[in-house]
Amino acid sequence: MAQKGSMLIDYSLEKSFELFEPGPVLLLTTKQGEKSNVMTLSWHALIDFTPIIAVVLSNGDYSFNTLRKTKECVLAIPNAELMQTAVSIGNCSGRETDKFATFNLTAAKSQRVKPPLIAEALYNVECAVIDVSLADRYGMFVLEGLKAWENEKIADRRTFHAHGNGIFTLDGEEINLKNLMTKWPQFV
Amino acid sequence: MAQKGSMLIDYSLEKSFELFEPGPVLLLTTKQGEKSNVMTLSWHALIDFTPIIAVVLSNGDYSFNTLRKTKECVLAIPNAELMQTAVSIGNCSGRETDKFATFNLTAAKSQRVKPPLIAEALYNVECAVIDVSLADRYGMFVLEGLKAWENEKIADRRTFHAHGNGIFTLDGEEINLKNLMTKWPQFV
Repeated sequence: MAQKGSMLIDYSLEKSFELFEPGPVLLLTTKQGEKSNVMTLSWHALIDFTPIIAVVLSNGDYSFNTLRKTKECVLAIPNAELMQTAVSIGNCSGRETDKFATFNLTAAKSQRVKPPLIAEALYNVECAVIDVSLADRYGMFVLEGLKAWENEKIADRRTFHAHGNGIFTLDGEEINLKNLMTKWPQFV
Repeated sequence: MAQKGSMLIDYSLEKSFELFEPGPVLLLTTKQGEKSNVMTLSWHALIDFTPIIAVVLSNGDYSFNTLRKTKECVLAIPNAELMQTAVSIGNCSGRETDKFATFNLTAAKSQRVKPPLIAEALYNVECAVIDVSLADRYGMFVLEGLKAWENEKIADRRTFHAHGNGIFTLDGEEINLKNLMTKWPQFV
């Protein structure tokens, strides 16, 4: 496990907003006591570049109360090869299932929070919950990224997007339109 | 213009959450008095299937105050052919620019709100702002979809995603994993 975990290298926290902006399916890890858990999530939005990220959970999710109580999590960005795993993670509950064991995920040690990194994900961002006041109204938690990691050994860099109804799309062709973005060069 | 507008047909409001869940770049129209405007947006999250959608704007955006004041908008989902237009829309302000004229967008009449539909978009969802209390803290407006439209004449159904730094990806391969989603069949 240590060996796999050691594949993770520092990634720029400043650039990590770019991981969330396209709206990929995410994995979210939590830890309560000695028990780590992971859920699948596609309802999220950037709030700021720093990054600040809003994530929306159901109050039926096992992670919901853990997140409210422990106020920390890791957001992992899975690649295309983890798509079936991500769907299966979303299809059972941490109440009954040890998901890291069941889905052969490697829990690597985080630096700033207790919930683990997922060594098989492209990127991991350790997050603090900075606002729980919207949890009851909208299931929303506001997160601040504290530390980002990359696994650059993973060859397939495509992420994937949920379309509801069991349909997903992989990232397709990449287009660079930097030349059109002249007004706010600080965002380029 | 009426002719182009008439290409729009009713679309299921119930299914329209599927348009937002993958996190595509959106266009958001507003109207104040006789002046319609449109902005480009990629910071948004679903809050509920009905659909309820959180959108995050900068308070520097010209649309910010209009949205707060008029409490209505249209969210349009542009296809791949509108990618350069969407970037250019995001690269100027409604303060100086008549964006519908400048970018040759056809403003079609909405049914439930004053801001116009964009006839060239794949889908349009007319929305009411149901919560402005997060506008100052997070630039966040909570929207409820009221009525959805589809332009089924558009051949290229691919949407696109912002990765920051002027990079975009088109929708790629579609994968159907409905068979894995057994626990919560109501979401399938």
